[in-house]
Amino acid sequence: MATTLSYTHLFSFTEAVFKSIGCSDEDATLATETLLAADLRGIDSHGVARLIGYVRLWEAGRINATPRVGVTYETPSTAVVDGDGGLGLVVGPKAMEVAMEKARQVGTGWVSVKNSNHFGIAGYHAMKALAHDMMGIAMTNASPLVAPTYSLERLLGTNPIAVAVPAGDQPDFVLDMATTTAANGKLEIAQRKNLPIPEGWAQNADGTGSTDPNAVKNGGALLPLGGATGSHKGYGLGAVVDIFSAVLSGANYGPWVPPFVAFLQPSANPVGEGLGHFFGAMRVDAFRPAAEFKAHMDNWITTFRNARATEGQHVLIPGDPEREMSGKRLLEGIPLLDPVIQDLESVGAKFGVKL
Amino acid sequence: MATTLSYTHLFSFTEAVFKSIGCSDEDATLATETLLAADLRGIDSHGVARLIGYVRLWEAGRINATPRVGVTYETPSTAVVDGDGGLGLVVGPKAMEVAMEKARQVGTGWVSVKNSNHFGIAGYHAMKALAHDMMGIAMTNASPLVAPTYSLERLLGTNPIAVAVPAGDQPDFVLDMATTTAANGKLEIAQRKNLPIPEGWAQNADGTGSTDPNAVKNGGALLPLGGATGSHKGYGLGAVVDIFSAVLSGANYGPWVPPFVAFLQPSANPVGEGLGHFFGAMRVDAFRPAAEFKAHMDNWITTFRNARATEGQHVLIPGDPEREMSGKRLLEGIPLLDPVIQDLESVGAKFGVKL
Repeated sequence: MATTLSYTHLFSFTEAVFKSIGCSDEDATLATETLLAADLRGIDSHGVARLIGYVRLWEAGRINATPRVGVTYETPSTAVVDGDGGLGLVVGPKAMEVAMEKARQVGTGWVSVKNSNHFGIAGYHAMKALAHDMMGIAMTNASPLVAPTYSLERLLGTNPIAVAVPAGDQPDFVLDMATTTAANGKLEIAQRKNLPIPEGWAQNADGTGSTDPNAVKNGGALLPLGGATGSHKGYGLGAVVDIFSAVLSGANYGPWVPPFVAFLQPSANPVGEGLGHFFGAMRVDAFRPAAEFKAHMDNWITTFRNARATEGQHVLIPGDPEREMSGKRLLEGIPLLDPVIQDLESVGAKFGVKL
Repeated sequence: MATTLSYTHLFSFTEAVFKSIGCSDEDATLATETLLAADLRGIDSHGVARLIGYVRLWEAGRINATPRVGVTYETPSTAVVDGDGGLGLVVGPKAMEVAMEKARQVGTGWVSVKNSNHFGIAGYHAMKALAHDMMGIAMTNASPLVAPTYSLERLLGTNPIAVAVPAGDQPDFVLDMATTTAANGKLEIAQRKNLPIPEGWAQNADGTGSTDPNAVKNGGALLPLGGATGSHKGYGLGAVVDIFSAVLSGANYGPWVPPFVAFLQPSANPVGEGLGHFFGAMRVDAFRPAAEFKAHMDNWITTFRNARATEGQHVLIPGDPEREMSGKRLLEGIPLLDPVIQDLESVGAKFGVKL
């Protein structure tokens, strides 16, 4: 049911595909690194399984393979970056570089991005800051699949928030979370296995709670983080992501965010350009000496990790499971389901690239 | 069961109490405005009901009524503020001023605060930015009542996050949320009414889910936002609040955060000074012209507000209920439960201030 490919093998293939659609060598490498970060970290829904989706968007003329990514507006600590319709996988890292350069100059940098496309996993972008002793923040809006509390309409994406914090001897802290109870990928898994989904994940088209894995497909919606008594909080967080990513930059927001799938058309009356992201970088030593901060971060991490836990469990630090998965998959390879392999083969065939 | 007092009446009384413990006229007014913002907005647990708690902490020598609040470390866009053991109600607004001044200079300002105390509601501080066409962000850590996912120990506070965004013709967007499913105040209400609490709010001392409103009192813990399948997200958000508020500034974090109640002693081996806050201010026009931003914010708000909703409901914008409550209570007065009235009378008697 699954084929395991090495990271380097998958990297070469993916890079060749990005070059085939016209990306420069540099951009193809960058896009591949960004995309495969999801596969390495075990977030299979956002990785190479989406390669065919990006290619289809490019075929539909909705992705520019040779974007001129640039700053269109700025202050010493902020910028708006125009992604020129490029791959979010390329636009994102370039915008994060701008945020980090601002942080070098004035302590922090904050960049809102318009005219971009899906950027892979938020955590990858936030983690870029770690090597520079900075905290990294990344958010993006996304195609509308989520109903705010009481809404029958889908107005928000799964709008993830990632925050990466450098530690000293301990592994870094990396939070990367959708602002929904469950990501759409989890519904897809339930669909394939024909299993009911837990309460609180989705609603039917009439707004009633659903345990049907096909609820969203059938006109329902994903639900914001928080469940029966707290979904207004997840809705509020998803709203903040949308505002910071798109109302600030001039991208599309809410129901106007362009769909990722090529068979759905973007709005004929957009309120902005493409979809939006938001990046932040904060130099640790803009607040206190980095060594001091890291020593306390290590203490924070070990205190939480060593807390008494329920039988058979232990307290995890955000980023632990993904880091372990990453180590394992670098060593053992990345398992890909048969439908994903078939998609990759068909993409490869299109450009004469062998998987 | 409840007595209704006018805002101005309650303001004069509270201001006189703060003066009685030694606050300067200016600080007493500021502390009162900050504290009563909670009562106006309907967040009764964080308002004047806590006045006796602040007074007891002052009596125990744990609040400095005449703090020298100042910047101890800074870059053009960041600062650490030392609250000198003062009321968070006073330290908070002063630190937010520093953040806004930085934003005036370089686009954004970010301030982490140490050596402070509880600061009332986060939303009040974030909203300070609105009059200046800035987005405001406020967070604070708090006494440990919350168990991270799988933990039997309480390691985090309810650690709220507030984000305020200015609009044009529409009322502003104000998100103010604890990173738990329910605030402790909601458990206290259930205790008074002797009603069970919903699943997902709290756990027993052994880590099992609880519907007992006394669960937290009896060695259990509040649960992070997200419920059965998503509490790792609320835990992650609460952790970010703790790190930004305290590991960055040099305040106490995690289980070391000093308790609000005077009968519980702070840790004999603190890892920092007092408790911590984090404030951010982002000038809207550091990203795009303010009028343009506000026009799109108005469109965002009306789109969400007018979405089709479940029978008998409508989609709320974060801040709607609190703004309506505020208008009502300014007009009709603030209802206070008998036990709160009794506490206020006993505080008043102490200083010869009549309620």
